[in-house]
Amino acid sequence: MSLLCGILNSITTMDTARMSPPSTNNKSKSTSVDDRPHGSLALHNIPTGDAQHLEHAVSTDLQRTSSQVQHTRIALGLHPSAPIIEEHDTAEHAENWWPKFRLMLKEPFAEFFGVFIMVLFGNGSVAQVLLSEGQKTAPGGDGFGAYQSISWGWGLGVMLGIYVAGDSGAYLNPAITLTNCILRKLPFRRFPIYLLAQFLGGFAASGVVYINYINPINAIEGHNIRTVPPSPTATAGIFCTYPQSTLTKASQFFSEFIASSILMFVIFALRDDSNKGQFSASSNWFPLALFFLIFGLGACFGWETGYAINLARDFGPRLMSYAVGYGHEVWSAGGYYFWIPMVAPFFGCLFGGILYDLFLFTGPSPINTPWFGLGELRRPRAAISDRIDQQRKEGLV
Amino acid sequence: MSLLCGILNSITTMDTARMSPPSTNNKSKSTSVDDRPHGSLALHNIPTGDAQHLEHAVSTDLQRTSSQVQHTRIALGLHPSAPIIEEHDTAEHAENWWPKFRLMLKEPFAEFFGVFIMVLFGNGSVAQVLLSEGQKTAPGGDGFGAYQSISWGWGLGVMLGIYVAGDSGAYLNPAITLTNCILRKLPFRRFPIYLLAQFLGGFAASGVVYINYINPINAIEGHNIRTVPPSPTATAGIFCTYPQSTLTKASQFFSEFIASSILMFVIFALRDDSNKGQFSASSNWFPLALFFLIFGLGACFGWETGYAINLARDFGPRLMSYAVGYGHEVWSAGGYYFWIPMVAPFFGCLFGGILYDLFLFTGPSPINTPWFGLGELRRPRAAISDRIDQQRKEGLV
Amino acid sequence: MSLLCGILNSITTMDTARMSPPSTNNKSKSTSVDDRPHGSLALHNIPTGDAQHLEHAVSTDLQRTSSQVQHTRIALGLHPSAPIIEEHDTAEHAENWWPKFRLMLKEPFAEFFGVFIMVLFGNGSVAQVLLSEGQKTAPGGDGFGAYQSISWGWGLGVMLGIYVAGDSGAYLNPAITLTNCILRKLPFRRFPIYLLAQFLGGFAASGVVYINYINPINAIEGHNIRTVPPSPTATAGIFCTYPQSTLTKASQFFSEFIASSILMFVIFALRDDSNKGQFSASSNWFPLALFFLIFGLGACFGWETGYAINLARDFGPRLMSYAVGYGHEVWSAGGYYFWIPMVAPFFGCLFGGILYDLFLFTGPSPINTPWFGLGELRRPRAAISDRIDQQRKEGLV
Amino acid sequence: MSLLCGILNSITTMDTARMSPPSTNNKSKSTSVDDRPHGSLALHNIPTGDAQHLEHAVSTDLQRTSSQVQHTRIALGLHPSAPIIEEHDTAEHAENWWPKFRLMLKEPFAEFFGVFIMVLFGNGSVAQVLLSEGQKTAPGGDGFGAYQSISWGWGLGVMLGIYVAGDSGAYLNPAITLTNCILRKLPFRRFPIYLLAQFLGGFAASGVVYINYINPINAIEGHNIRTVPPSPTATAGIFCTYPQSTLTKASQFFSEFIASSILMFVIFALRDDSNKGQFSASSNWFPLALFFLIFGLGACFGWETGYAINLARDFGPRLMSYAVGYGHEVWSAGGYYFWIPMVAPFFGCLFGGILYDLFLFTGPSPINTPWFGLGELRRPRAAISDRIDQQRKEGLV
Repeated sequence: MSLLCGILNSITTMDTARMSPPSTNNKSKSTSVDDRPHGSLALHNIPTGDAQHLEHAVSTDLQRTSSQVQHTRIALGLHPSAPIIEEHDTAEHAENWWPKFRLMLKEPFAEFFGVFIMVLFGNGSVAQVLLSEGQKTAPGGDGFGAYQSISWGWGLGVMLGIYVAGDSGAYLNPAITLTNCILRKLPFRRFPIYLLAQFLGGFAASGVVYINYINPINAIEGHNIRTVPPSPTATAGIFCTYPQSTLTKASQFFSEFIASSILMFVIFALRDDSNKGQFSASSNWFPLALFFLIFGLGACFGWETGYAINLARDFGPRLMSYAVGYGHEVWSAGGYYFWIPMVAPFFGCLFGGILYDLFLFTGPSPINTPWFGLGELRRPRAAISDRIDQQRKEGLV
Repeated sequence: MSLLCGILNSITTMDTARMSPPSTNNKSKSTSVDDRPHGSLALHNIPTGDAQHLEHAVSTDLQRTSSQVQHTRIALGLHPSAPIIEEHDTAEHAENWWPKFRLMLKEPFAEFFGVFIMVLFGNGSVAQVLLSEGQKTAPGGDGFGAYQSISWGWGLGVMLGIYVAGDSGAYLNPAITLTNCILRKLPFRRFPIYLLAQFLGGFAASGVVYINYINPINAIEGHNIRTVPPSPTATAGIFCTYPQSTLTKASQFFSEFIASSILMFVIFALRDDSNKGQFSASSNWFPLALFFLIFGLGACFGWETGYAINLARDFGPRLMSYAVGYGHEVWSAGGYYFWIPMVAPFFGCLFGGILYDLFLFTGPSPINTPWFGLGELRRPRAAISDRIDQQRKEGLV
Repeated sequence: MSLLCGILNSITTMDTARMSPPSTNNKSKSTSVDDRPHGSLALHNIPTGDAQHLEHAVSTDLQRTSSQVQHTRIALGLHPSAPIIEEHDTAEHAENWWPKFRLMLKEPFAEFFGVFIMVLFGNGSVAQVLLSEGQKTAPGGDGFGAYQSISWGWGLGVMLGIYVAGDSGAYLNPAITLTNCILRKLPFRRFPIYLLAQFLGGFAASGVVYINYINPINAIEGHNIRTVPPSPTATAGIFCTYPQSTLTKASQFFSEFIASSILMFVIFALRDDSNKGQFSASSNWFPLALFFLIFGLGACFGWETGYAINLARDFGPRLMSYAVGYGHEVWSAGGYYFWIPMVAPFFGCLFGGILYDLFLFTGPSPINTPWFGLGELRRPRAAISDRIDQQRKEGLV
Repeated sequence: MSLLCGILNSITTMDTARMSPPSTNNKSKSTSVDDRPHGSLALHNIPTGDAQHLEHAVSTDLQRTSSQVQHTRIALGLHPSAPIIEEHDTAEHAENWWPKFRLMLKEPFAEFFGVFIMVLFGNGSVAQVLLSEGQKTAPGGDGFGAYQSISWGWGLGVMLGIYVAGDSGAYLNPAITLTNCILRKLPFRRFPIYLLAQFLGGFAASGVVYINYINPINAIEGHNIRTVPPSPTATAGIFCTYPQSTLTKASQFFSEFIASSILMFVIFALRDDSNKGQFSASSNWFPLALFFLIFGLGACFGWETGYAINLARDFGPRLMSYAVGYGHEVWSAGGYYFWIPMVAPFFGCLFGGILYDLFLFTGPSPINTPWFGLGELRRPRAAISDRIDQQRKEGLV
């Protein structure tokens, strides 16, 4: 935790200098304009008589506090206001240091726990299937799960992770976050803190899975022995992905690339307001559709490289497994395969996103500007400052 | 049933003395303010002409009856008014003893049958998979189900149990109930009757499963022989959980603890009004999300200790299996493991709930008060009476 | 088809005599009051200008036709008006004999096709798993499905059958229909035509499955040889249920009884307006919940007797299999087991329904009247005529 | 892509001559009347102040552009206006050639990518299961998936394909498209461009799957060796369907025919406004219901001929596999089976649609006209011109 705080402080120091505080208007205090459908929380915003009175009483404090919280949030790259409903914006957030601190880090906490839940179920499902393989005492007589359990584990892990991380946008994946920065107006400045939170979520969750399954891991590998595929007793595959041996390097990359492209393409389709005419993939359905999407990637593109498609889900647990003693092989296995699930998802998601924007998206996207937005590459500084001006005008930063 | 009534009477006698009857206002008669989203039943509340007339005619009776019912309900720790829609609040509830009795015990009955349905499917799925293991005459030639059927069984058992027990809050688990008492303003006084109902639901349902599968149990174990794992013909695992032999005591505890934590953490996320901005986990989606959550716990954390995570689901059936002759081993197996699924879920759920409140919850919670609510531990009596006053003011008790 | 018409005619002749035509009011023309939630179709009822004009022009014809259709429908025990939306109630239904005929039999057709779809998927899944057992050329190398496919098949068969039969109430099961007659005001007079339609749907669908799989059945059994379990090449289990050999008669009955009870109990919970406070099991969710319910019955209570729980699903296909040559054994197998899935579901569903009404239902039910409705058994004639009067007043018949 | 453009041009030239431009009214610009439920996009149509101003400024351009786009769209058989929401209909679509081009081909692009996603998951699931068969290093020790994974793959492929192709109607299947032309007023003129897009989607997606899995295919078959069932190392079954050897030609046809009939029958039930009284299969539920429908067809009718039920899904990949070297056997296998999944789905879907319209549909359908619409066959020209007049009046073309 101190590590996290330290990093946060350094980011803060680095960024605050060049940021001016945003105008504090009462409306934007409770909901970030960019992350929420208009009016979605309106039902909760009707305060009862007492609450109104209370709110009035502490309003001065809240203004001061909010202003302090807002400064930190801006420095972290977040929207000035944390995404909480108005009736939760009470005195306690002004008076106690922890609620204030939590407001500052609302979205990173959400991303952390979203990835945490996702990896907990994902890694947990692999652990259970791999470690109980062929166990005769299982009901049914053949282990506690089959490969399909892993599709279930990752699929529902993502679904529940999205529910947990709802407030932050529930990207749960640095590659998806970055693609949203490039193509969907998510401010670039949020990327580092989101990346950090997602990575730490994956790191921590795989550690919990390791602790939970340490007895059977010892039983299979032996005490203080930890191995990586293709060792016959390898358990490293519980935490991060290792490729099939028949694959060339190009095929390793392509497998991660295509799976990431599909991921981003379908997510953009599901989040496209214009593409809801017929079958209304409303926000309610998004987590369930993601269950099917991730299940499908596991069942259809999960064999060759284990469908990492996510730096946070792969690098985080890989580092954890290195830390607990799986050895240098976690990096060298598969011909130093480890960098592919770090890099390929970024290219894949970006490609999938561009593909969607090119052929199906009609809303605002760099792809829908002259020369597919490539013109801006000639004057990058101007383009960036234009973009920031625009975002500031829209209240995104 | 007479046992239940006896216990209820004793509770009643014990508690009535120090309870004053609540003010009887017409509005609170049909819906308990705490358990229901405002207005959710509004559509049913528009009485037709005839019904209005009828209601008017019996209103005096209803008032009297309600008052009597309310007294008993208060004594049991329940909200003064049973959660029924207004158009069901008719003369019959005033005139007949059984409808009156049912109104008194509405929520305990709901919890009883919720757990009943849950355990029926859960225990049933284990029974079917375990007893039909490897049967060659099955379609497919290898038994009637695999380990995954058990994930399905418990997952959909919880889902359908929630539908059945909707009116009571559908906690279905003493640990979840207690955590809601501590962190979510559910009155503590409801805990005993809920606990009792949940326990009895698990006890009764496992008895039905036992009766249903008694022929194949006899065929496998032999008449009048009942064994517990690791006996090769053991069938006790149908009813309650037994740990894997490789686990240390600490791992047994940790496995139940972590699964319970995840359970509570995700449930709090799903029930957090502030966390619905993006993906609106509305009440409609709750039962389905719980299916995935329980399925996931079974597929990812279900191997080591069988994911009991619920006293009612484990101790109830364990007692039943002891009663029908599985012998002292139901307690002694796994190094007197039986207490772990009774105790660990309480700690795990509380930990998961606190974790959620610490990092993601912005609404009213003891964690969101000064010193994380620990200050109140210095003056427990005052804190309790404050709490009860507060609840009385809000109409919760 | 001529058989069906013949039976219908006889019913018509028998019943028309003592029925008086209902009052024809415009409102009841398009929606049957009992079967539909109020206002659910309101959105479709706003006619455009042209349609209004058209409707006006043919209104006289429609009145005459409707009256004729209504007479037949009343004679069949159905509601006077077929459940179609107003904008579909156009001239064509007045002028063409087939649309008129279809209006007369709307609900029986819906029940027929609902059961048809259900049995098509259900029997189809058993056929595929059983006939392809262990086939090495399958992708995966071990047949085209496992026991779980059958849970899927029946589960989604019921779900899709409900969608197909939505207009008729989608009972799809004579035992559920009858329990609704007894406890939920469904007019008894509809039972025979529903029963007939459901039975014929099961009969026809199993015939289609037989034709579809006749080549592999011949390959396994041999030409003109058809056997019943426990024959090692038996394929009769594709169509209807045969019990496990270890079961006593009492256990056979109990297994069907308990599964039917659960079925009815959960359906009543899902359809209980008062039990929707928390988790709003709205009509939208009903088919999905039924998928889980039937899947669960298959995974948890499907082994011993094959969870027939439905006369139409078991007797219909059994008769079909007898007709195509599976021999007298379809009746004698399992100690003349065939009558159990015909009789037990009626008792089981009734028991499950009464259980729900006794402990959880607060709405109008015979159980919620003095002496649990048993008082009426002393004066059956009066009770019946009271009931019919009541239904006529409410526009149900 | 140049192929596509060439074909499009030729179609354009051929058709433009005899088409008059439709009246350009502002309302029909943003939503095609036939494809969208009224008002479904209304929430997005409230422009903010700035957007309104912007829109006003470019309105003249838009009119001109729209007119040009409309001409091309009409020539292609599409509705004059592309189905995009009003706020997306901005200057960029007028000024840049690519957005304009995309508007012209919105629905074909949608169908292309819908089938693309569907076949990606479908073929991918078969590839993974077939190629990893029995692999001992898999978690669980027995390959990366079983037959059921394929039911999942196609089921969720269709579901996600529908989400992607929402704007075009998401037919994803030429047989379904044609049946909608015949029975549901979809203009026949759209069939060719939809067919082309669907075919190309299947062709392209199977190519991507081939590239993705080329290493393991080589490992199993050997370099430059590609075989077709019943070769023991055949991998052609990944891409398109091959029948079981026990089937007669008639059974091959019947199997595809009956599966296609069920497909269309259930889709018509799900899309029938009149059949929503009870269980409201609203548009939201359609993709999920299709998951279950396709899963069910795979689990219950998928063994004999592989449930192609779709020319685009079978012929597209078959041609691709021929192109990459699977040889003449892709056509000759199974007694020149390849034409059956091209032809049978058209007959099956039409039969299923007619069955639904005959027995359950009460809305406008040729079946609901005198002599079941057969009368029009006597005067085909007049019928066609009537139909086109009617469609023009309703703004469909």
